[in-house]
Amino acid sequence: MAATATKRLSPEQRRAQLVAIGMRLIERSSFDAVPIDRVAEEAGISRSLLFHYFPTKRDFQVAVAQAAADELLAATEPDDSLPPGDRLRASLEAFVSYVSTRGEAFTSLVRGTAGGDPALRDVFERAHTVVATRVLSGLGVDEDTETTLLRVAVRGWIAFLEEAIVVWLATGAAAQEQFVSMLEAALVAAVATADVDGHFAAIVSEVQSARP
Amino acid sequence: MAATATKRLSPEQRRAQLVAIGMRLIERSSFDAVPIDRVAEEAGISRSLLFHYFPTKRDFQVAVAQAAADELLAATEPDDSLPPGDRLRASLEAFVSYVSTRGEAFTSLVRGTAGGDPALRDVFERAHTVVATRVLSGLGVDEDTETTLLRVAVRGWIAFLEEAIVVWLATGAAAQEQFVSMLEAALVAAVATADVDGHFAAIVSEVQSARP
Repeated sequence: MAATATKRLSPEQRRAQLVAIGMRLIERSSFDAVPIDRVAEEAGISRSLLFHYFPTKRDFQVAVAQAAADELLAATEPDDSLPPGDRLRASLEAFVSYVSTRGEAFTSLVRGTAGGDPALRDVFERAHTVVATRVLSGLGVDEDTETTLLRVAVRGWIAFLEEAIVVWLATGAAAQEQFVSMLEAALVAAVATADVDGHFAAIVSEVQSARP
Repeated sequence: MAATATKRLSPEQRRAQLVAIGMRLIERSSFDAVPIDRVAEEAGISRSLLFHYFPTKRDFQVAVAQAAADELLAATEPDDSLPPGDRLRASLEAFVSYVSTRGEAFTSLVRGTAGGDPALRDVFERAHTVVATRVLSGLGVDEDTETTLLRVAVRGWIAFLEEAIVVWLATGAAAQEQFVSMLEAALVAAVATADVDGHFAAIVSEVQSARP
């Protein structure tokens, strides 16, 4: 980091640099305790210059949360070339693997922001919406066939996923394959039951039969 | 409420009265916005006397959250005289019905406190632990047979339950029977998959076959 200290960066580069430092630091401290002074120091700028780019500490936190959400969404982007069953499992495995390496930051974000301020909640709300839409579209649900209950099922399952990961990491993160199977089984069961008209019965049974 | 205004209450009675007023008021406002002045006014006491019983607004909020959690746990206490499948369903129906009548307060608590202060988080953590233990013991899991993955599954499912209820209420709370079936199906699937050794296969299939 010292090498970048004296470099002239464009405003965009400087913001990106500060956010990257913030993302690294939240892995070792709680989200609310991101040490602003340390971020400025590692970037080789003054605290007041940092506040030039991010007017308040909360603005900085929102930018870090958004970057973390973007990184997670990119790391778990479904591979559309795979059949639905394999695609869901591959995406879940990517999610669990990603979070396993960034567990502290993820826990810190999930635990610290749900009740946080509206801007932080929006970051999470948008990420949840992206995940819900990915999951629904992976199951072949589109605007015409989506029902309220299907959306409720998937939104509930995303909360399941986040909480289960946090507890799983806290208890030692053993048996990843079985853990992923459990996440998958809960989703499939919830969707199958919410699919009152049986529109997705074929795809659900494909996902079920793809389980190892 | 006016009738109680001039009554002399014991400290315990006064605390209980203030908490009851707080519980009623959070149904119509967000949890963080419980109007302390209004609580004192409805109790017919001064704001400073309220702070004699609850030194800070946060203390009062924690007491209200604890009372809400206690009420919910009491309303959803499993009926041990029922067989496991019916017991789970009856408990889920009681939960959904209870929350349906107190939706605003429930949403306000779930959305507002997860990232709240440690005392509030403890209230939720204890309630979640009670629910997880009830669910596990309802499935016949005891200290000897409980595994980390089973506990992870049930903790994840409690988050599912809370999030699904909040989204379901926000989208019109239709089709309660189907909604309860979905909650149940997700739990059974998660537990069945987490039950690596098949200890609970018999009880899981009993619960599954008890579904309407």
